[in-house]
Formats: sequence, structure tokens, C-alpha cells
Amino acid sequence: MSGGLRLAVLASGAGSNLQAILDGVHGRDGIEVVAVGSDKPGAAALSRAQQRGIPTAAFPLAEQADRAARDGALAEWIAGRGAQLVVLAGYMQLVTPAFLARFPHAVINVHPALLPAFPGLRAVEQALACGVRVFGVTVHFVDEGVDTGPIILQRALELPYAREPDDVLPALHAVEHELLPEAIRLIARGAVRIDPADPRRVLLEPGTAGGTSP
Amino acid sequence: MSGGLRLAVLASGAGSNLQAILDGVHGRDGIEVVAVGSDKPGAAALSRAQQRGIPTAAFPLAEQADRAARDGALAEWIAGRGAQLVVLAGYMQLVTPAFLARFPHAVINVHPALLPAFPGLRAVEQALACGVRVFGVTVHFVDEGVDTGPIILQRALELPYAREPDDVLPALHAVEHELLPEAIRLIARGAVRIDPADPRRVLLEPGTAGGTSP
Repeated sequence: MSGGLRLAVLASGAGSNLQAILDGVHGRDGIEVVAVGSDKPGAAALSRAQQRGIPTAAFPLAEQADRAARDGALAEWIAGRGAQLVVLAGYMQLVTPAFLARFPHAVINVHPALLPAFPGLRAVEQALACGVRVFGVTVHFVDEGVDTGPIILQRALELPYAREPDDVLPALHAVEHELLPEAIRLIARGAVRIDPADPRRVLLEPGTAGGTSP
Repeated sequence: MSGGLRLAVLASGAGSNLQAILDGVHGRDGIEVVAVGSDKPGAAALSRAQQRGIPTAAFPLAEQADRAARDGALAEWIAGRGAQLVVLAGYMQLVTPAFLARFPHAVINVHPALLPAFPGLRAVEQALACGVRVFGVTVHFVDEGVDTGPIILQRALELPYAREPDDVLPALHAVEHELLPEAIRLIARGAVRIDPADPRRVLLEPGTAGGTSP
């Protein structure tokens, strides 16, 4: 995917991760958001996209026969816009295996925990119940499990006194807003590939993702 | 435990965490290592302690009827030295419930992962197999499970290009050598207590453990 990248972004809520993508990578280095979709017709994410002149569409489950039909229509619309990478940015629906098969190793998600710890819903609440001192964010490829796909980037956040979600969420959202655009930039540069020796792991081109190269 | 603390340290191997305790907290602020024990009579940790004039003893399982008898003798020796806190520092044996009952909420362990992720043996290998980008260290109270007790301190280490244990272990050991003495200092200062609302969680006195206070 070197040399530019056409993105579709899916979001269900306020769209702050979409905004980070629009502010941080859209229109730079050949990266373009070409479609923003939602399961919720009223999602603020759709307005944010429209303000930037980006085509939007909503695919509420209630208007379709079932999830397969909904995801089929969604995939058709995304593919029709020429998207090469689908970014789940606060999208509160599981995508079907057929949807994933349409975009192989090209659907990514941002999750508010250091996976494999605390997959699924209410990740920060799960972490607080365990009394952890380190929280974090993961950007990963989506597979057929719940937050089980190969990890692309992670970033940690040490909050040793956190007791309530509000002690964690604002800082964690700020990390998401950095990490998701960073992952998109790396994919656009061709710096991210599945490990040929182990398809559960992602290899990063050294020197691209911060930290210390080996 | 405010105002001084008498420690027993148990180790099975080279004793680098014991050395960090001897260098970092022993003889300061009323903290004294009063006993160093091992399951292995030849453990280098014992020599390190002897060089500092600290009483040592080995309790190999083969010389006892069973684990209960071994841990009984070990607990008796530790209690006889007046230890108030037992530190497992690379101690490769599980301790029995009877041992824990003898030192309630006063046995701590250092583990080379961000628990609850990757408990048990070969934690770094487990993490590498999952393709994580963030490694880390946990100091926790020991309970009857394997690395399941309440978390005292954690510190993260971002190594996005790590592929082999040797890419991780030297840096992770350096974090252990900081974090375990730090936890001991906090316990000695009375800054660590079990959350009365939830005995699975540990509360830290704000401002004591680095990071940002709420």
C-alpha cells in the first residue's frame, strides 16, 4: 500500500477518532478519507465528515434483513468509493466474516486497552476492577474474534492512582487520537506487514514507530 | 508498617533483584534485609547476602517430607528473624496457603509482565507470541493463585520491534530492579493499603509512586 492510501472510516458516536484522522492524516502524503459510514444515521461523526466534503452513509441494522445484508451493503458502498483500508474508529458493531473477506488484512480497529488484556466492551472498567496501574491503547487488524486480531501498535499510559473511568478516559482518548493516525501513516508507507513466519504477529519496519530499533 | 521494615527475600537464581534491594533500600530509612532464603543451596543470591553479612538459609524440597513441611520450616525461620515483609525476588517455587496465612498481605512478588496479562512461567515468551508492543513489570501481593494477587505497582516498557526474548529481557530486568525497591519503600512508608471497598485492589497514597496524582 506504499504511496498513498484511500480510507473508509466507520464510527458510531461523537467521532473524535475520525476528527483526529481528518486533522492528522487526511490530505497528507497521499492519504485520503474517501468514505465515512455509520450504523447510526444521527452520529456526529457523519456531520464532521460532511463538513470536510467527504461522502457519508448510514447503514442502520433496522433497515436491513440482517447483519449479513447490512454488512454486504456497507462493503459494497465502501468498495465503490475505492477504499483500500477500513478504519473502525469507535464503531460499536461487530463486522461479519464476509465483510472482512472483502478487505483482507485491511480492516483496523482502535481499542482502549493493552490487548490481549481486556478485550470487548467496557475495557477501562475491566482494567480498573483488576487494579492495574498501566492502561493503554491498541491498534490492531480486525479478525473474526472480538479484539483478537494481530497487533499493529500499542501505547501505554501509567496512571497509578486511577480509581474511576473518568480518571482514565480523557488521557486514554488523547492517546487514541495519536496512535490511530500513526498506524494509518505506517500502513500508507508500507511499514506494516504480517509476519510470514507467524500470521498472528505484525512486523514493523524498524525506525518507523518511535521507540528504539533493535 | 510505617517507620522501618524488616524484610526476608527469597530467590532461586542469580539474585539480581536481591542485589537491587541490597543496593537500593537495605540499610536506608529503617529498612533492613534480615534474612535471605532459597530453595537452591547453590543460588548465587545466597552468596550476595553473605557478602553483606545477612543470614541465609536454603530449604530444598528434597530434604523435606513435602511442600507443606518445607514451607513450614521456611516460615518458621523467616518469622524467627523478625521479618515483616517477604519479598519473592526470582523465587521459582509457589508458596503454600499456610505460608501465606503466616504473613497476611505481607508477601510480594515481581513478575515480568503487565498482569493480569501473561501470568505464570515464560511471560515474555507468551507476550512475544501475542505480538505485543508494550511489555512491563508488575509488583503484587501474593495470593493463592498464580500471579493473581492485588497489584501494587506496574511499569510499562514500549519495545515495538521486539521479536525475541533477548530483545526484551535486559531492559525488563532493569525495570524490575527499579520497581521492586520502589514498592518496598512505599510499603515501608505506609503508602500501600488494600482498598477497604474492594480487597482485590491496592490503594497508593497519592504523590508517592510517580505519575500524576488525581
